[in-house]
Amino acid sequence: MPEKDFSSLPPFPWSGCGANKERVGSRFSLYPLDNNYSQIILESLARIEASKIFSQTDALSTLFRGNLTHIFDCLSAFFIGAYRDERHLCLEGLVSCGCPGDCDSDSPPPTDDKRLNRFKLTKRDFPLKAKLSLYPLGIVDYLPIIAKVIRLAEQMGLNPRVIHYVTRIDGAALKIFDYLEAAAMIVQKEVSHFVLHFTLSAGSHTLE
Amino acid sequence: MPEKDFSSLPPFPWSGCGANKERVGSRFSLYPLDNNYSQIILESLARIEASKIFSQTDALSTLFRGNLTHIFDCLSAFFIGAYRDERHLCLEGLVSCGCPGDCDSDSPPPTDDKRLNRFKLTKRDFPLKAKLSLYPLGIVDYLPIIAKVIRLAEQMGLNPRVIHYVTRIDGAALKIFDYLEAAAMIVQKEVSHFVLHFTLSAGSHTLE
Repeated sequence: MPEKDFSSLPPFPWSGCGANKERVGSRFSLYPLDNNYSQIILESLARIEASKIFSQTDALSTLFRGNLTHIFDCLSAFFIGAYRDERHLCLEGLVSCGCPGDCDSDSPPPTDDKRLNRFKLTKRDFPLKAKLSLYPLGIVDYLPIIAKVIRLAEQMGLNPRVIHYVTRIDGAALKIFDYLEAAAMIVQKEVSHFVLHFTLSAGSHTLE
Repeated sequence: MPEKDFSSLPPFPWSGCGANKERVGSRFSLYPLDNNYSQIILESLARIEASKIFSQTDALSTLFRGNLTHIFDCLSAFFIGAYRDERHLCLEGLVSCGCPGDCDSDSPPPTDDKRLNRFKLTKRDFPLKAKLSLYPLGIVDYLPIIAKVIRLAEQMGLNPRVIHYVTRIDGAALKIFDYLEAAAMIVQKEVSHFVLHFTLSAGSHTLE
């Protein structure tokens, strides 16, 4: 991964001075379109096995920090675990890696790559509508890596369509989480700082 | 605004070849955490005066295209118009400008700068919790413009706090929309392509 020199930057109104480039995080919000939204969110958070990540919830969103494997293991378990038939459930989130304004605090414990939640999910798949946008930062030629990530969606059968500002995809929940993880992994190898935003929607009654 | 030469780009899996650099758009989703979410969304969309923008709603989000003034005029009217006391309402959105993969289609009619919705809103203000992230694309030195936008939040009394991956702000709904519009206007002058993501939350029972 290319290294950057941030030593000449002016003082910024934040304290971070660059995190470990392998430090990955996700910030996301679950929106159950249901009067019982609070209970649905907290119960699904409590059900995941999150010992391999750092997790913190505030009034707007939840933060996961760790490696990509465990972040997606926990995020997919959280979303898929919250879904029930006939429930309209949306997740808005981002995965970020290499932010030069970030810092190493709020890190997970050292760990291995064994997923702790995946086995619970394989029998609970359902269709999702989704959209995503990838932002490779600090580089002039950022379109080729975006194109690579869209082509990966084609290869995985997710029917990507580029509409204004986002790429729409459709597919089974587990496959879409696998795609987002694979996409982030590809970009992490090529770009020193990127953010991948995504919206997932399950149980919507709207066709298109 | 600096111009870029996109003529040497490889073929991408989308049809756009660069939009007019003044063409601005927003894509957003309203999440009323309420069993009547669909009615709340559609009724508030129907109430705004949207003749100065292009507007299109699909299963995941709504697209507004036009100039920044009218996009924020309509977006603030949509969100503020959907709010009622004791209703927990979240908006997840982005404002994008200058995407080289975008195209000029779905444009608004030629128009003036007079806002059509603002006068309806001034008596309906309420507190918001919000977060935002700014992505200036295609430039190596992207941190100074992010710092400028955070300092603007300080100057406007929105108490910005940089947490992992986002900046948290708090304030009255109208002031926060004014801030987002002012921030986008500053960045539009300095960067040829940027995306500003934001989350707004009203009526939450969670304190922090």
